[in-house]
Amino acid sequence: LKGDVEFIMYYIGVDMGGTKIAVGIVNEKGDIISKDSIPTYRERGYEEVVKDMGLLILRLIKAQKLFVSDFEYIGIGLPGSINKKDGILIYANNFGYHNAPIADELRKYIDLPVFLENDANCAALAENVAGAAIGTQNSITITLGTGVGGGIVVGGKVYSGFNDAAGEIGHTVILSDGKECTCGRKGCWEVYASATGLIAQTKRAAFKNPESLINTLVKGNLDNIDAKTAFDAEREGDKTGSQVVEQYIKYIAEGIIDLINIFTPEVLVVGGGVSKEGENLLGRLKKIVYDNIYFKGEPKTKILEAKMGNDAGIIGAAMIGREG
Amino acid sequence: LKGDVEFIMYYIGVDMGGTKIAVGIVNEKGDIISKDSIPTYRERGYEEVVKDMGLLILRLIKAQKLFVSDFEYIGIGLPGSINKKDGILIYANNFGYHNAPIADELRKYIDLPVFLENDANCAALAENVAGAAIGTQNSITITLGTGVGGGIVVGGKVYSGFNDAAGEIGHTVILSDGKECTCGRKGCWEVYASATGLIAQTKRAAFKNPESLINTLVKGNLDNIDAKTAFDAEREGDKTGSQVVEQYIKYIAEGIIDLINIFTPEVLVVGGGVSKEGENLLGRLKKIVYDNIYFKGEPKTKILEAKMGNDAGIIGAAMIGREG
Repeated sequence: LKGDVEFIMYYIGVDMGGTKIAVGIVNEKGDIISKDSIPTYRERGYEEVVKDMGLLILRLIKAQKLFVSDFEYIGIGLPGSINKKDGILIYANNFGYHNAPIADELRKYIDLPVFLENDANCAALAENVAGAAIGTQNSITITLGTGVGGGIVVGGKVYSGFNDAAGEIGHTVILSDGKECTCGRKGCWEVYASATGLIAQTKRAAFKNPESLINTLVKGNLDNIDAKTAFDAEREGDKTGSQVVEQYIKYIAEGIIDLINIFTPEVLVVGGGVSKEGENLLGRLKKIVYDNIYFKGEPKTKILEAKMGNDAGIIGAAMIGREG
Repeated sequence: LKGDVEFIMYYIGVDMGGTKIAVGIVNEKGDIISKDSIPTYRERGYEEVVKDMGLLILRLIKAQKLFVSDFEYIGIGLPGSINKKDGILIYANNFGYHNAPIADELRKYIDLPVFLENDANCAALAENVAGAAIGTQNSITITLGTGVGGGIVVGGKVYSGFNDAAGEIGHTVILSDGKECTCGRKGCWEVYASATGLIAQTKRAAFKNPESLINTLVKGNLDNIDAKTAFDAEREGDKTGSQVVEQYIKYIAEGIIDLINIFTPEVLVVGGGVSKEGENLLGRLKKIVYDNIYFKGEPKTKILEAKMGNDAGIIGAAMIGREG
């Protein structure tokens, strides 16, 4: 009998954000079979939000002609500090909730185990299971966005330390006593390697170099500078733009070299808005990294662009409870 | 029968250094039952060295009235780059050997599996199995000596990455474009937080501040400065000494905060000559670390002084092949 019937396992992943809650049913390869989303309206408090989340999940299961009993757990990815064991969201800036018992609340509506995970860790797991780092045991995914996020996968599982707080790789110092970071420390990698950092660096350079094309590109208004401006200026031959980009790539490289010297993951995945520059960024980044890592032998960590896009949160969340 | 007879497991660990080879028989608690050592005489080439190592191991086994068949493997800790799968020492400065097939060579004399491991990783495993981090799943041990060494234990096992090259935590940058490091990079933690770094910082400060007690303590000869000098000067009320110590502890803290933000190990163990300053160093270090780590909640990583001393290499090496 076993040879005749194919058992397909499905998983439920929730990407719980401050403005939107996205739910998906995912197969074991990490393909999304079905998904839907609702606004969060976080001001209502977590009880109402989780109730709507539960109803959305039940609706999605039913629409697929599946049953709650077809699933082993529900995985939720969300920003902030988490107590995984008890399924509690300790604190998240994006929601304003303190010690919200998300898992217990959701179980009022659906009788399945509920696992919480940090959203950056979900994205890293998604890249490991179905994205750029597929087939590897150990991988790290960094996200260059408003901040520098990151997730570490060891042995195919998210590494989050004994207190669920590991993986804050954006908050490692690359310039001791440097610029203030939102975390209270000075000189964190995030301050220099995030898109926010790049924008600040571009503004300073444009201000100091009035002749730079950057000023023309933003019509003289430095507030129009975004994470693409310096790259655009460089493409048109602007020296200041080129200097900004060079220095920015060096900053990204510093943190990546650190991570490789510590972990030597099989693959290091680079994601986030800035990574859209593609090979122009990645190629130059790799050159600096490989010239400066400690272990000069083979094999080396591969540095690859993120593949998973917007669904990474759902897919990673869906995979967090898988065994093996 | 099983209830009547106690089966005690014994392990063999080798600490293979450039000047001395130390071999020990270790029980499963990490206690050394018996040990002995011989000079390395590395110039002879690895074949002769490994032969002597093998004879020493056999002698030790016999003296304990044990048999080769009482053991499951031999563990060897050594400095340098290793190919674990094939038991090859790729390169080690301290020996001058290139691609030395240590495991195969030793098996000519003893019919047991042979496992190689980096010596800093062995020390970290020893602290985890029997030292300051006993009873924890995840711990990191740093060694503040000539350089800054380190080993990472995840799930009770050494984490060494897919290419056996992980754990080079001394080679993470804390001052981008800072002082030259031996690894070729600029601004590595090791440059600032090693005993070597402290000595250089003390020398510079003494030179710049001729009135400092440091100059008196070393009888005007800056070459007499060692890793204790600034601490000694501070103890006697010297302002320059105190400034050097404060800044040095800050440098150590920077790297430790980074490691905690990345890993949140249950315990972070501080070893090496400098750690002999005890609570004077550790207490001040902890204050800076806990004020600056990202996750302000509980539980926090414990920071403890190393316990294992000189036998850490033997004990860690003996434990590297253990399952579970």
